[in-house]
Amino acid sequence: MVSRIYTTQLSAHVGERVQIAGWKHRLRRLSGISFLIVRDKHGLAQVVIEDDTISTELDRLYQESVIRVEGIAIATPQAPSGVELHHPQITVITPAHEPPPFDLFRPSLTAQPATLLDHAALTLRHPQRRHYWQIAAASLCGFRSALDHCGFTEIQTPKLVASATESGANVFSVDYFGQTAYLAQSPQFYKQIMVGVLERVYEVGRVFRAEPHDTPRHLNEYTSLDVEMGFINDHHTVIALLTEVLQQMLEVIAPLMPELPRLPQRLPVIHFQEALELIYQQTGEDARHEPDLAPAHERWLGEWARAEYGSDFLAVEGYPMIKRPFYTHPNPMRPAYSNSFDLLFRGLELVTGGQRLHRYPDYLAALASRGLNPDPFEGYLQAFKYGMPPHGGFAIGLERWVARLCEVANVREVALFPRDLNRLTP
Amino acid sequence: MVSRIYTTQLSAHVGERVQIAGWKHRLRRLSGISFLIVRDKHGLAQVVIEDDTISTELDRLYQESVIRVEGIAIATPQAPSGVELHHPQITVITPAHEPPPFDLFRPSLTAQPATLLDHAALTLRHPQRRHYWQIAAASLCGFRSALDHCGFTEIQTPKLVASATESGANVFSVDYFGQTAYLAQSPQFYKQIMVGVLERVYEVGRVFRAEPHDTPRHLNEYTSLDVEMGFINDHHTVIALLTEVLQQMLEVIAPLMPELPRLPQRLPVIHFQEALELIYQQTGEDARHEPDLAPAHERWLGEWARAEYGSDFLAVEGYPMIKRPFYTHPNPMRPAYSNSFDLLFRGLELVTGGQRLHRYPDYLAALASRGLNPDPFEGYLQAFKYGMPPHGGFAIGLERWVARLCEVANVREVALFPRDLNRLTP
Repeated sequence: MVSRIYTTQLSAHVGERVQIAGWKHRLRRLSGISFLIVRDKHGLAQVVIEDDTISTELDRLYQESVIRVEGIAIATPQAPSGVELHHPQITVITPAHEPPPFDLFRPSLTAQPATLLDHAALTLRHPQRRHYWQIAAASLCGFRSALDHCGFTEIQTPKLVASATESGANVFSVDYFGQTAYLAQSPQFYKQIMVGVLERVYEVGRVFRAEPHDTPRHLNEYTSLDVEMGFINDHHTVIALLTEVLQQMLEVIAPLMPELPRLPQRLPVIHFQEALELIYQQTGEDARHEPDLAPAHERWLGEWARAEYGSDFLAVEGYPMIKRPFYTHPNPMRPAYSNSFDLLFRGLELVTGGQRLHRYPDYLAALASRGLNPDPFEGYLQAFKYGMPPHGGFAIGLERWVARLCEVANVREVALFPRDLNRLTP
Repeated sequence: MVSRIYTTQLSAHVGERVQIAGWKHRLRRLSGISFLIVRDKHGLAQVVIEDDTISTELDRLYQESVIRVEGIAIATPQAPSGVELHHPQITVITPAHEPPPFDLFRPSLTAQPATLLDHAALTLRHPQRRHYWQIAAASLCGFRSALDHCGFTEIQTPKLVASATESGANVFSVDYFGQTAYLAQSPQFYKQIMVGVLERVYEVGRVFRAEPHDTPRHLNEYTSLDVEMGFINDHHTVIALLTEVLQQMLEVIAPLMPELPRLPQRLPVIHFQEALELIYQQTGEDARHEPDLAPAHERWLGEWARAEYGSDFLAVEGYPMIKRPFYTHPNPMRPAYSNSFDLLFRGLELVTGGQRLHRYPDYLAALASRGLNPDPFEGYLQAFKYGMPPHGGFAIGLERWVARLCEVANVREVALFPRDLNRLTP
């Protein structure tokens, strides 16, 4: 028996007897000839069947049955990939037990969103859905390789924590041997602590947000790509690293996408206050006393960055301190503004980052000014009590990144098994 | 100002003016001369101080303060790394706020285990503790690179699930918008589902076990390295892959460890029943009717593999079906025994793996025979309803692997922020 090749390898084996294996994607029966499409992890292959007995048997087999096909690879310009299999010998590996409730062979899935989510095991087999995840996986690979190259160390930190990370709201509570634990909203505290140990760290992990909104942009559990680095000058060191990381992510994704977003060598950066001023001058909308950007303003800035810098990305720096978490470092020259930033990708917030406080007394003051008791933060505050360099970092939401990259409106279409207000399965 | 180099780069800069930065690890004052040890993420450097005013100022600075030192790199055979800094200019970046409650400069940490865990932010800075995590990070890197090389795709799957993965026991429950959710004990169901999509997948993620034991080997949250692959012959395909993955992990770890465990090109494999027979013949202990291996027998087999095969690893295959989870594939020739295996590393279970059922009716029968209702498994069973190839995989516990590799008795010493029956902080 010849050994298996992938459907995408057929063109390298023209004229040879080969074996492919995969799922029965589609069978088209014409008079005297049938075309079987086999799907494997990489692609599709067409098998030409001239024996009507074989076609009839195949027709009885439900779609998605797992099969093995041996045949001769023949170059045929009109075949979908330029090569097809002739004179096939077909073996059923595992028959499907039922016909699928919707077709996987159409260019896009047409069933209702809820039906598709209920049948994720099947939905994800659709080449387009699978492709979204392949882009996610390539993004993870690019993220890590950029950081490994820059001397970062991967960390893995607890998701079960004794107190909420950033505020008391929007955390899931867990019964932990009779105590109440919470699910971590981010690895923020741990990645900062680890700067004291390893200086430069990253974590790819799940984060949990008990936000009760039901929007196309939010998930209650998602994958966060977290970075933190010590010995920075200020948040501009962090923005420079972020640019490098995004460049590497796009480089690894490139073979999977015909057109990549435009990211200039030097990421455009605009100050928060300057952005509001610009919006006022150009649109007449006066939001100059607002503490945050409205979604419409983010979209406007996205358009502006594209026109002005030919960039799909724009960093907005210097958000007012009042809207940022307590560990945010102020701008020493203008203390009402922070050394933090958001990265807008095509006019939507994708990344939040910035410089953090690093002096112990600053933490005590920041907690006190917000009326927060320092006791629940003890293990975190130790990192600063015992000496911490100036540091900062950022976090990228994986599913939101892929959705924006693939221009998919609902983040649920790119997450593997999304969790939202109404969905805990599959 | 010269730019910063790491302490480990000093020997490449002998005779030059250089800058290092890091933590005040130790100061030794002798008459007329002082030695300052600076620690950075990579190592230690000795700084020679002949100016007593500087020494006195440094002495007032608590250990773990963050400093920058510029000086001339001088080759000195008696210096710890062969090079030390002379004529230093020292800048304090961040003073520590308090003296640490225990010394980090001693070869090993001598405080009580609970004190060390309570002060993880400090404890992890100790070079030995930091080294354990560096080995963990290198293991993750080797794990992924082996699998990427073999055409695997990384996945990220939910930790919030609607029903327990393998059994109803030992799961943490979560209040999910008024519903009860559980924390996933493993990504088992999801990685199998994803074989239907991508054929070969892996996940590095946290898993949660609500086991109320308090032992040196168990954590209630840990990092699991999960693999699943389709189109296998049986569990031997999985054992071959596991061998390759372990080889690559050891290769990446090699620069960090003077002596690696011995892993032969071909991993020794013994059948469960044969193992019990061997134990009976050699020790007189008759466990031939037991359904599982006792820890003492695992240790005995570890010794035996080392003597017989020069291997620190031994796979035991064919555990009785009765002790394995419902998705386990039986040995078609001896259905009371499974196509599953455990990997013993130095006589301790490190990996569990095997072939899984892949036919839908087999799942229904397996659930029925255990009195389990198939309804909560619906999203999982779809994968089999719609055609799944023969498949299998394995899971490695990261912290247990590192503990065993570094011969550390308690897994809490190698986990970053361990969670156990009595500990949820820091």
